Amino acid sequence: MERKDNKALTVAYIGGGSRGWAWGFMTDLAMDGQLCGTVRLYDIDRSAAERNEIIGNKISAHKDAVSRWQYVVSDSLQQALTGADFVVISILPGTFEEMRSDVHLPERVGVYQPVGDTVGPGGFMRAMRTIPMYVEIASAIRDYAPDAWVINYTNPMSLCVRTLYEVFPGIKAFGCCHEVFGTQKLLCSMLEKETGIKADRHELYTTVTGINHFTWLTRASYRDIDLMPLYDKYAHEFADGYDEGGDTNWMNSSFACAQKVKFDLYRRYGAIAAAGDRHLAEFMPPWYTRDPETVRRWKFGLTTVDWRVDDLARRMQRSDDLISGREELQLRASGEEGHLLLKAVLGLGDLVSNVNVPNRGQIPNLPLGAVVETNALFGRDRIEPVYAGPIPSNILPLVARHIYNQENALRAALTCDRKLAFTTFMNDPQMGHVTPEDGQKLFDDMLENQRKYLPKEWFR
Amino acid sequence: MERKDNKALTVAYIGGGSRGWAWGFMTDLAMDGQLCGTVRLYDIDRSAAERNEIIGNKISAHKDAVSRWQYVVSDSLQQALTGADFVVISILPGTFEEMRSDVHLPERVGVYQPVGDTVGPGGFMRAMRTIPMYVEIASAIRDYAPDAWVINYTNPMSLCVRTLYEVFPGIKAFGCCHEVFGTQKLLCSMLEKETGIKADRHELYTTVTGINHFTWLTRASYRDIDLMPLYDKYAHEFADGYDEGGDTNWMNSSFACAQKVKFDLYRRYGAIAAAGDRHLAEFMPPWYTRDPETVRRWKFGLTTVDWRVDDLARRMQRSDDLISGREELQLRASGEEGHLLLKAVLGLGDLVSNVNVPNRGQIPNLPLGAVVETNALFGRDRIEPVYAGPIPSNILPLVARHIYNQENALRAALTCDRKLAFTTFMNDPQMGHVTPEDGQKLFDDMLENQRKYLPKEWFR
Amino acid sequence: MERKDNKALTVAYIGGGSRGWAWGFMTDLAMDGQLCGTVRLYDIDRSAAERNEIIGNKISAHKDAVSRWQYVVSDSLQQALTGADFVVISILPGTFEEMRSDVHLPERVGVYQPVGDTVGPGGFMRAMRTIPMYVEIASAIRDYAPDAWVINYTNPMSLCVRTLYEVFPGIKAFGCCHEVFGTQKLLCSMLEKETGIKADRHELYTTVTGINHFTWLTRASYRDIDLMPLYDKYAHEFADGYDEGGDTNWMNSSFACAQKVKFDLYRRYGAIAAAGDRHLAEFMPPWYTRDPETVRRWKFGLTTVDWRVDDLARRMQRSDDLISGREELQLRASGEEGHLLLKAVLGLGDLVSNVNVPNRGQIPNLPLGAVVETNALFGRDRIEPVYAGPIPSNILPLVARHIYNQENALRAALTCDRKLAFTTFMNDPQMGHVTPEDGQKLFDDMLENQRKYLPKEWFR
Amino acid sequence: MERKDNKALTVAYIGGGSRGWAWGFMTDLAMDGQLCGTVRLYDIDRSAAERNEIIGNKISAHKDAVSRWQYVVSDSLQQALTGADFVVISILPGTFEEMRSDVHLPERVGVYQPVGDTVGPGGFMRAMRTIPMYVEIASAIRDYAPDAWVINYTNPMSLCVRTLYEVFPGIKAFGCCHEVFGTQKLLCSMLEKETGIKADRHELYTTVTGINHFTWLTRASYRDIDLMPLYDKYAHEFADGYDEGGDTNWMNSSFACAQKVKFDLYRRYGAIAAAGDRHLAEFMPPWYTRDPETVRRWKFGLTTVDWRVDDLARRMQRSDDLISGREELQLRASGEEGHLLLKAVLGLGDLVSNVNVPNRGQIPNLPLGAVVETNALFGRDRIEPVYAGPIPSNILPLVARHIYNQENALRAALTCDRKLAFTTFMNDPQMGHVTPEDGQKLFDDMLENQRKYLPKEWFR
Repeated sequence: MERKDNKALTVAYIGGGSRGWAWGFMTDLAMDGQLCGTVRLYDIDRSAAERNEIIGNKISAHKDAVSRWQYVVSDSLQQALTGADFVVISILPGTFEEMRSDVHLPERVGVYQPVGDTVGPGGFMRAMRTIPMYVEIASAIRDYAPDAWVINYTNPMSLCVRTLYEVFPGIKAFGCCHEVFGTQKLLCSMLEKETGIKADRHELYTTVTGINHFTWLTRASYRDIDLMPLYDKYAHEFADGYDEGGDTNWMNSSFACAQKVKFDLYRRYGAIAAAGDRHLAEFMPPWYTRDPETVRRWKFGLTTVDWRVDDLARRMQRSDDLISGREELQLRASGEEGHLLLKAVLGLGDLVSNVNVPNRGQIPNLPLGAVVETNALFGRDRIEPVYAGPIPSNILPLVARHIYNQENALRAALTCDRKLAFTTFMNDPQMGHVTPEDGQKLFDDMLENQRKYLPKEWFR
Repeated sequence: MERKDNKALTVAYIGGGSRGWAWGFMTDLAMDGQLCGTVRLYDIDRSAAERNEIIGNKISAHKDAVSRWQYVVSDSLQQALTGADFVVISILPGTFEEMRSDVHLPERVGVYQPVGDTVGPGGFMRAMRTIPMYVEIASAIRDYAPDAWVINYTNPMSLCVRTLYEVFPGIKAFGCCHEVFGTQKLLCSMLEKETGIKADRHELYTTVTGINHFTWLTRASYRDIDLMPLYDKYAHEFADGYDEGGDTNWMNSSFACAQKVKFDLYRRYGAIAAAGDRHLAEFMPPWYTRDPETVRRWKFGLTTVDWRVDDLARRMQRSDDLISGREELQLRASGEEGHLLLKAVLGLGDLVSNVNVPNRGQIPNLPLGAVVETNALFGRDRIEPVYAGPIPSNILPLVARHIYNQENALRAALTCDRKLAFTTFMNDPQMGHVTPEDGQKLFDDMLENQRKYLPKEWFR
Repeated sequence: MERKDNKALTVAYIGGGSRGWAWGFMTDLAMDGQLCGTVRLYDIDRSAAERNEIIGNKISAHKDAVSRWQYVVSDSLQQALTGADFVVISILPGTFEEMRSDVHLPERVGVYQPVGDTVGPGGFMRAMRTIPMYVEIASAIRDYAPDAWVINYTNPMSLCVRTLYEVFPGIKAFGCCHEVFGTQKLLCSMLEKETGIKADRHELYTTVTGINHFTWLTRASYRDIDLMPLYDKYAHEFADGYDEGGDTNWMNSSFACAQKVKFDLYRRYGAIAAAGDRHLAEFMPPWYTRDPETVRRWKFGLTTVDWRVDDLARRMQRSDDLISGREELQLRASGEEGHLLLKAVLGLGDLVSNVNVPNRGQIPNLPLGAVVETNALFGRDRIEPVYAGPIPSNILPLVARHIYNQENALRAALTCDRKLAFTTFMNDPQMGHVTPEDGQKLFDDMLENQRKYLPKEWFR
Repeated sequence: MERKDNKALTVAYIGGGSRGWAWGFMTDLAMDGQLCGTVRLYDIDRSAAERNEIIGNKISAHKDAVSRWQYVVSDSLQQALTGADFVVISILPGTFEEMRSDVHLPERVGVYQPVGDTVGPGGFMRAMRTIPMYVEIASAIRDYAPDAWVINYTNPMSLCVRTLYEVFPGIKAFGCCHEVFGTQKLLCSMLEKETGIKADRHELYTTVTGINHFTWLTRASYRDIDLMPLYDKYAHEFADGYDEGGDTNWMNSSFACAQKVKFDLYRRYGAIAAAGDRHLAEFMPPWYTRDPETVRRWKFGLTTVDWRVDDLARRMQRSDDLISGREELQLRASGEEGHLLLKAVLGLGDLVSNVNVPNRGQIPNLPLGAVVETNALFGRDRIEPVYAGPIPSNILPLVARHIYNQENALRAALTCDRKLAFTTFMNDPQMGHVTPEDGQKLFDDMLENQRKYLPKEWFR
C-alpha cells in the first residue's frame, strides 16, 4: 500500500527568507500535532534564509509546539526540491525599488493604485519580472520534484500559478489566498449582529467564483440560513461604511477598509465581491481610485511603498529580536489554511476551500486553462474543483477582461514581446483614460526601472 | 431571513404505493430526529397508496421513532405537489407483464439480460413507456412545485432524470442510486482483510464518474491509504470470484455476485467499475451474457421476472402482515442516503455523495446536458457537481455509446419516431450481433407488448 | 423536385419607406435579369412606403431594367410577410431627435462619437429602442414567414441579428454590411499603386473575423500574391494618412477618412481593421476621439446629426424629384451584395462573402451564439460559415468586451433591467474614464430622451 | 511581395515507387499548364522509385503534355523534403503478406472485410504498422520542410493525417480521397435520368460530414434544385440495386457496387452515405457482411488479397511495358483533385472541396482535433473548413464510435500498449459478436503476423 510517513515529510520553501508569511507558516506547523519533518529554506538572499533557519528551529523548539520540524537552508533549487513532498513558494520578486516604480510611477498619468501587485500597471510590471522567475522554478520542479504538491503564495497569484502550469502542465500546484476569508468573517459579523449567532467562518458555505483578489460569492449560507438577504440589507443600510469590529488577519490589520467599495459593487452587480476593498478597486475602472480624495471618500487606504519600507524595517527588527531572544516567541495561529490543505492532500481529512487553479470547467463561461478561484474538494493526493456555475453575465465582462490580460501578459513575458505587452498594459481598466502617448512613455519607463530583473530580449 | 421550518416539511411521494423503497424511506425518516412533517402519497394504484398510508403512520408511531411524520394519500399529482418542499419519485412503469417482455423476449435472438431495466432491448423499451410518464410528472412539478427539490429512484435512472430536465430545465432534480455504495463496501471488505482496519464506506473517498449502473471509480482512498493498488491486487488474485462476506443491501441480497465481471473490467480497463455485476454486464457487448452458461461461468444471476413475481407476492404478504400487525414492525436503516441528501439541501449538513444530474462539465469529455453520475457537494439549496476529470479514454467509447443512445432514446420517445427508435435499439452493445431483420421483428413485438402504455402516435 | 420559381418571387421589405438603401436595392434588382417578382413595402410611415412604391415601379419600368418587379405597399407586418420568400429589414429606429440624443448628449462627459449607432453610449441607447422593434419583427416572421430568408441592414447590426435569433432560433437570417468592402477596395488601390495590377475587390480573398464595424482581416491575397506585406508597408509609410483615390461607395462618400486609425491599429495589433475609421475608433478607448481636435488629428469626421438632417432633406427632395420626373432616373449598381446573396440562397450561384450570423464555432474563442462577422459560403437554401480560426489573442479582449456588452444589452432591453443596462453602458470603452455619478446622470437623461420608443417597464 | 514561382516548384513524393496513384498524379501534372517543377521520388523500395523516375519523365515528355516536370529519385527523406513546396504521401505500409493477414485472418471468427484497410480488425492492424512510419515522416517534415503543404493519400486516411498533426501540430497537411466523388456522380446519374440535365459533379453542392470512407451528405443540390427528394425517391425505388451506367473512376471500376447498402443506410438514417458500399459496410455492425452470402445479397464485392496480388502483377507488367515502350503512353485525367488543390493553395484559384483535416469545430458535436471529412475552402496558403453543422444525432453514435477508436488506436500505436490496443480492436462494430477469448487470440496472431513492421516494444 502506498502511504506517506507523515512524521517524516519534506517541505521545500522557495523564498524561505520571507519575513512574515514564513513565520506564520512555521507557527501553524508547530501547532499541528499530526505532521513532522524537515523544511528546506531556499532563498536567493541566503542570509535571510539562514535567519529563518534559526527562527524556525526556535519555533519548533517552543514549549507549546506539538510537533517537531527541522529547518535547514538549501543551497540551490535542485537541493531544496529533490525528494520534497511539498513545495511552498512565497517570494518577493525584486525589491522595494521596483515596487516603488510599480505603485507610484503611474500616478503621473493619474493612476492611483492601492496595492499595485496584481493588476493595473503595477501588477502588470510586477508580472513581467516574476514570470521569468516562475519559469525557472517550474522547470526545477518538473526536473527535481514532479510529484510534489506545490502551494503558491506570491502575487500576482493568477499569473504565478498560470506560469507554473504553462511550463510544467503536469504540476500539482495551487494558489492560496486569505482574501475570501475576510469577507466570510464580515458575513459572520453581520450574522452575529443580526441574530446573536456566533459562527466561525469555517461553518459558512460560500460559492466562490472569479479570479484572485476579484473573487465573488454568488451564494452564502450558515446552516439553513441564507445569508444573501442579510448581506443585501447591510449593503444598503451601511452604504457609507461598516465597522465589523476588528479584522484580526495580521496582513490586513494595518490597512482596514470600511467595505464601501464592496457594498457598492454588491448594489450594482448583485453578488458579493470577496476581497479587501483595496484589491477590488484595482480591478474596476477608476471609479474608486480617480485621485486620493476619491479614495478617502470610499474609505480605504493606498498602501504606499514608504509604508512597506517602514514595515519591513519593523519586521527586520523583529527578526533580530526573535533571534536574539529579546522578543519572546509566542505561538499564534496565522489564520491561513496552507497547513490544512497540506494535510488534506496527505489524506488526513477532506476539506472544501477556495483555491486558485486552472479552469477545467468549474466556471464554464471563462476560458479553459485560465487560473480562476473557486472552491475545490481537497483530499488524498487530489484537488477536485467544485462546479461554481457560469459567472453571472453582468460580472463576466469585468472578470473576462482580466483573464484575457492574464493570458496576454503571460505570452508577452515569455516572448519579451513589447507590442503585445503594451496593448495588454493599456487594456487594464485603470488605464482606460490614458492616451497612447502617455501610456507608451509610462510603459517604457516602468520597464526600464526593472531592467535588471528582465530578460535582455526586452531591450533589443 | 429565508429559512424553512424543518419541523413542518412537506414531501410529495410519487409512486407512493411502492413496496420496499417506500418502507425504507419511511423508516429512515422516522429514525432521524431533525425533520418532521407530512408525506403525501400519490399512486395511480390508489389502494397501494392507502396501504402505505397505514404502514407509514404505523412506522411514525413506532416506539423507536424519533420524529413525527404524517402520511396522507393524495388524489392527484396537483394535490400532492402543491406546496411540496420535496418530491420523491419511485414508480413502477407498467406491470410485470411488460417487464416480462422487456427481459425475456430478447432471449429469442440470443440476448440474455440479467436485469433489463436500464439499457439493452429491455431497458430501451422500459424507457419508451416511462418517458411519457415523466413528461407528465415534470410538467406537473413545473406547474405546481417549481421550487421543490426532486429525488428520483426510478429506472432507467439516467433517462428519467434526463426527461425531467428536458421538460422543465429549471427543475432542481437529482437521481439517487445505491449501486456505488456496494462497491465502496467491497473496498472496505478488502481493506479489513488486508490490514484489519474496519472502515465504514462513508470514510472512503472515491472519485466517481460515468453513468448510472455503469459508474467507474478512478480514485479510491481511505484516509492516507491509496486503495487502488489494493484493488489491483484483489482483482488479480480473485479473478475467479471474491466473497466479501455478506452484502447487507436489501435490494441485492438475493442476487449476490462474485465480482468476477468487475474484476475482469478492472484488469482490462484499469478503473473500478462500481455497480453490481448484473448491471455492468448489460452495458458491454455480450462478453458476459452470451448464454446462461456464460452467465454462470461469470458467477452472477439473471433476475427472472418469475422471481420478481414471487418476490412481490412476498412483499404483498408482508404488507398485509404489517398492516394487520401479524408482523411486528422493526425500524432498521435502509442503507440509502436519500434522507441525508434531503437534510443537506435543507442546510443541515454539507455532504459529498454520488448523484445523477446533467453534465455541466464535471466530466468534460462527455456531452453537456447528458445525465451522468459523479460526486457532488450537497448543501443548503444547492448541488454543486465535483469535477471528476475526463473519463479515461479507453472507457470513454463504452460510456459515450450509451450516452448517445440516451439522447436518441429520449428524442424517439418524445416524438414517437420509429426509425430513430429502431436504430437506437440496434445500437445497444447487446444487439451488436443481431441481424436487422431479427432486430426489427423483436422491436415491433416488444413495442406491441406495451402498446397500452405508449402514446398512440407510435402506431399510426 | 423542390424548386422556387425565380420569376415569381416575393420580397417583404420592412422599413420599405427607406430613402437610399431601398433605392439602391431596387436598382440592383432591376439590373439583374435572373429574378422577377413582387416587393411588398411595409413601413410604419405609410406615406414613405407609398412614395417608394412609385419610385420602385418607375425603376422597374426603366428602359435599362432587365427584369420586372412589382412594388406594392403592405398594411401590416402580417400582410407583408405571409408567403414571402425573402424579408429585407432596413428600418430607422426613432427619429433624428433620438439620434441627436444618442450622438451628442454624451459630449457633455467628453465622449465624442463619430457615428453613434453601433456601440458607445449612443449605440447602446439606439439598441434599447431597436430591440423591442426587432422582437416584434422576429415574432411576426416566426408566425407568418418562418421559411423565408431574412436580410438585415439596420444598425446596431449585431444586436438586431442577435435579437432575431433570440426570439426565433429557427430563423434563417443574416446581416449584410459594406464596411469590409471599403477595406478590400483600399487593398486593391494599394495593389494597383504598387504593381499596376487592376483588381476588383471580388478577386481578393480576405479572411474576415470579428464583429460588425469592428471586423478584422487576418489574411488577404490576390491570386498568388500575399497582400499582408504590402499592407504592412503602406501602414508604415502612410502613417499620416493615405488617399486611395476616391471611395465610390455612396454611403461613405461624404465622410471619407485617411485610414490613419486603420493603419495605427494595424501597427499595434498586426491585423487589418476592416471598417471605416469612424466606426473603428468607436470600439476603442478614446484614443482617437478624446476631443474634436484629436479627431481632426486622426483625419476622420464626426458625422453630426445636423449633417444627417440636411442629408435627409436632400434625399427627400430627390424623392420628390424622382417621383415628379424632375430628376431623371439612372440605374447604377449600389455596390451592395444583397441581391447576389439572395440569388445565392436561391441556388443561382455559390458565393463566399462576409456576413453577420451567430457564432457556431467559426471563431472558436468567442462565445457560441454571439453574432459575429466572418466569411460564409452561400448556396441553395444554406449559409455555411467558413472557419476563421481563433481571433488573435491580442485582439480578442477588444472584441470580446463588445460581445459581452452585446449579450448584456440584449438581456437588459428584453427585461427593462436598469441596473444591468447601466453597468453595460458603463462597460463601453468610450466610457472608461467617466465617473459613475456622471455616467448615471447621462444614462438617465438619454433613456428619458427616447421614452416614447421604450416599453413602459423601464420607467416603473 | 511574397509569391512562389509556379514554374519552379518542388514536390516531394513519399512512396514515389507507387504504381497507379503515382502515374495518375504524374499525368494530371503533365496535363496542367500552370505549373512546372521537380518531383522528387522517395521510396524505401528504391528500384520502384527509379522505374517511376523513368515513367514520370516519359509522361512529362509526352507530346500531349502541356507542362514540364522533372522526376528524380531521392536517397532519403531528408533529401526529398529539404526545400520542398509540397509533399505527397502515398505509401504501401507493408506487403501483401501483412494485408492478407489483415483481410483474411478475421474470417476465422466470422468477420468478412470487403477492404480491410480502414477500420475493422484489418484496418486496426494496418494502422498499428502505419502509424510508426507516419511518426517518422511527420518528424522529417517538421525538421526539413515545415512550411510545405502535405497531401496524404494513404489509408487508413484518418489515422495517417491524425498522426501527422500529433507529431507536428504546425503541419499544413490534409488528406484527399475520391470516395465522395463517386456518390456525387451517382447523384448526377439520377439527375440526368430524371430530368435529362447532364451535370458534372463539380456543379453539384453537397454538404459533407463524417469521417473518411464513412462520409455523409446532409444536403445536395444542383443549382436551384434540391437533390435530396430525388435521392429519397431512388433509394426507395431501387432498394434492390441501381446501375448508374458506368463508374469511370479507375480505382473502383473493377469492384463496382449496386448502391444497395447506401440506399439502405439512407432509408434508415435519412442522409446520404457517400462512399463505396464496400467501405460503408465496414463501419457498421455485420449487417451487410455477416458471411459471403450476405455480401452477395447486398451486391458488393469482397476485395480479396489474391485479387490484389494479381492486380499488382498486371500493374508491374504495365510498368515494364511503359518503360520499354511496349505500351504507348496515353495522357488521361485521373479524376483525382490533388493537383487542383495544390494549385488552390498556390493561389491559382479558390476551390471548395471535401478534405480530411482535424476538427476545429466544423462538426461541432465531434471531438476537436479528431480528423474528420468536410468541405473546406482552399485558397492561397490556407484551408478554411466550412461549417457542416452538428452531425445528425442518429448518425452521431456510429461516427463517434470510430472517432474514439481512432484516438485510442493512435495512443496504442504510439505507446505499444497491448491492453488499450485490444480493447480498441474489440470496440469495432465488426467485432461486436466475438468473444474476448477468440478476439484475444486473433489479436495476438495478427500482431505477430506483422511483427517485422512493429516497434519491438510490442513484444516485451
